[in-house]
Amino acid sequence: MKIAIMGFGVVGGGVGEIIRKSPDGLLSRSGEKIEIKRILDLRDFPDSPFTCFTKDFNDILQDEEIEIVAEVMGGTKPAYEFTKQLLLAGKHVVSSNKELVAKHGTELLEIAKEKNVSYLFEASVGGGIPIIRPLYSSLSANELTAVLGILNGTTNYILTQMIKENASFDDALKGAQEKGYAEKDPTADVEGHDTCRKIAILASLAFGKYVNSEEIKTEGITKITLQDVAYAEQIGCVIKLLGMASKEKDGVYARVCPALLKKDHPLAGIDDVFNGIMVQGDAIGDVMFYGRGAGSLPTASAVVSDIIEITKQKDSHIRLGWTEGCEGYLLDSNQQKFRYYLRVSGNPETAKFSGCQVITVDKPEFSGEFAILTPVLSGDEFEVLKNTVAASFDILGFIRMVAE
Amino acid sequence: MKIAIMGFGVVGGGVGEIIRKSPDGLLSRSGEKIEIKRILDLRDFPDSPFTCFTKDFNDILQDEEIEIVAEVMGGTKPAYEFTKQLLLAGKHVVSSNKELVAKHGTELLEIAKEKNVSYLFEASVGGGIPIIRPLYSSLSANELTAVLGILNGTTNYILTQMIKENASFDDALKGAQEKGYAEKDPTADVEGHDTCRKIAILASLAFGKYVNSEEIKTEGITKITLQDVAYAEQIGCVIKLLGMASKEKDGVYARVCPALLKKDHPLAGIDDVFNGIMVQGDAIGDVMFYGRGAGSLPTASAVVSDIIEITKQKDSHIRLGWTEGCEGYLLDSNQQKFRYYLRVSGNPETAKFSGCQVITVDKPEFSGEFAILTPVLSGDEFEVLKNTVAASFDILGFIRMVAE
Repeated sequence: MKIAIMGFGVVGGGVGEIIRKSPDGLLSRSGEKIEIKRILDLRDFPDSPFTCFTKDFNDILQDEEIEIVAEVMGGTKPAYEFTKQLLLAGKHVVSSNKELVAKHGTELLEIAKEKNVSYLFEASVGGGIPIIRPLYSSLSANELTAVLGILNGTTNYILTQMIKENASFDDALKGAQEKGYAEKDPTADVEGHDTCRKIAILASLAFGKYVNSEEIKTEGITKITLQDVAYAEQIGCVIKLLGMASKEKDGVYARVCPALLKKDHPLAGIDDVFNGIMVQGDAIGDVMFYGRGAGSLPTASAVVSDIIEITKQKDSHIRLGWTEGCEGYLLDSNQQKFRYYLRVSGNPETAKFSGCQVITVDKPEFSGEFAILTPVLSGDEFEVLKNTVAASFDILGFIRMVAE
Repeated sequence: MKIAIMGFGVVGGGVGEIIRKSPDGLLSRSGEKIEIKRILDLRDFPDSPFTCFTKDFNDILQDEEIEIVAEVMGGTKPAYEFTKQLLLAGKHVVSSNKELVAKHGTELLEIAKEKNVSYLFEASVGGGIPIIRPLYSSLSANELTAVLGILNGTTNYILTQMIKENASFDDALKGAQEKGYAEKDPTADVEGHDTCRKIAILASLAFGKYVNSEEIKTEGITKITLQDVAYAEQIGCVIKLLGMASKEKDGVYARVCPALLKKDHPLAGIDDVFNGIMVQGDAIGDVMFYGRGAGSLPTASAVVSDIIEITKQKDSHIRLGWTEGCEGYLLDSNQQKFRYYLRVSGNPETAKFSGCQVITVDKPEFSGEFAILTPVLSGDEFEVLKNTVAASFDILGFIRMVAE
């Protein structure tokens, strides 16, 4: 089986290393020897053990011996055009590119089906954690009802540092950058965009209709403070950045936001750069998947597992995918109900809001402020409550709570 | 796609229910409508919605329309003969039967390969948790190095009751029986035999060579006391029944025993009837799978997912399996090293054992006894230490500790 790699960065390099290191292992597990015939990258790699580099996409597209291409370039330009042309030419494509799958997955999967080839993207969500294949294969006997996940290692590392080491957001971010867990421009991670693309892919696959990541309400963790962490601790909770999607009768709710989780929630114990994804099905109940959500070798191992899967079934189209979503399928997220944690400045003794629990932290630096935990409210109901509270107190912040 | 079910008990009934309830769902996910043509059971089910019962195995074996058979009878007689004949007749078989897979899996997988049909058994380990398919598919790019799991819901429920509710072993077992989590004769669960078969299957699949469950050192939880639970708590640990297997240079270690786990270990928080399985690979690091390890619908959903998987690839053999193990492949478990917790009666102040940590519980009922936590020792080294300790103290019990 001859393959090509497009993009020789962190993931592409890992794919090369895994295949080069273990040719016999992969032979026994795939039934064929897997050989890298071409690597596309505009850069030069004079010290690489590989000698099959090219800067010309046509060297891959027009090579009839190459049956599988690993697209690990990232971004949509030129990955979208390249992938489309490869599928149209009857080549299988595997991808780690969450942006491309979230944006153009519907069309690319459709082309793959028509051309009787496969388009797989296990590496696009959860790094090396097997999550895409379980959704379309292992859990296929279930009507899936919800997906809830810690999908971004960078933000989980930052929050873990805030919770366990009492580091401020800025210090934790700086530490993450120093360790190579966060980019110089951390926006995509800390603002939740990365999580958003991943939950869009999971929701599309789990519930069978396309969910557009650009329409998902997305909040990051930049406003989370150490005070929030302390109030959460007070009620036995931790704060995690969650991607969430759930199936309702008429459509789906999807959202990315920081949330309070009770400490006995299976996702609450997932710390540092680890990812965890919880899936709910009608037959299985809750299942959870946990592991390293990023990194060269974990992510590359997911890419290679897709290559092996296709090698085992190279003459057929591996069925997975979703159909176009219809108007109104993504439900108004304002209608989704949560309990809310609300932090305010003022005297807790004057706070009287029906059904709400008052939380205080008995430390000098928390004098003159407190928090409220509301009952279950829709977004609109919470707006009303917030306005009522704002009449007597200054609102310092709020976070949703995920029950279970 | 016409299928048959052999055995209409808890799992077989669940398989029937899932397929009957969701014919369209399964159609869209498998590409063909799945229809139950025959159900084999010696009992009568006058109230069942199904009317296709038979007591004659030949009604399934000789029916050329039936392409897949779900063997959910349990035990090896007559399941072994039936499965063999079905595979030889060119039918695919899916199974939830851990006893059969652990005992005769090598031969049955070999026959399936020769006949170009599939023999799948996702439901044999971990109920509905996807674990078998990840091992042979999603994680196939890895050289797997270890598998560690809480694989039996009954014993995990009992231990959770002891840890969280301070229930004695006998009371916890009685409660489990009342809730239907434990059989009237709980031997297979509490003595670890069920866990043993499951870890044998996982080890065979993960490392590629057959591990015979009958040769795995197996200890259950009947000797665990509330005192042990209290000492474990004292050093930040919980006690769990683990199936463990690890790949060494010359073979594999495999063992079933209760073990102390630090509370921050990912398996430590898996409580009640839930199962958790941790897999270690060279590229991925640690991944964990968590969910309901038993029950009618979870287990049946795993059986049905295998049926769907085969329906998608019905003209081919799905590659999974292992080869015969060679002499000495299962390594002498006595050589495997652990830290040990050792509980003794006597005065802790007179205890001086080099490298050991003394643990005491400051409660009246623990006066006149204490525990020791040893350094990492082989089984032989521990025997020596135990004999030294026994010269001065009465030994009340011991448990291995699993480090991260």
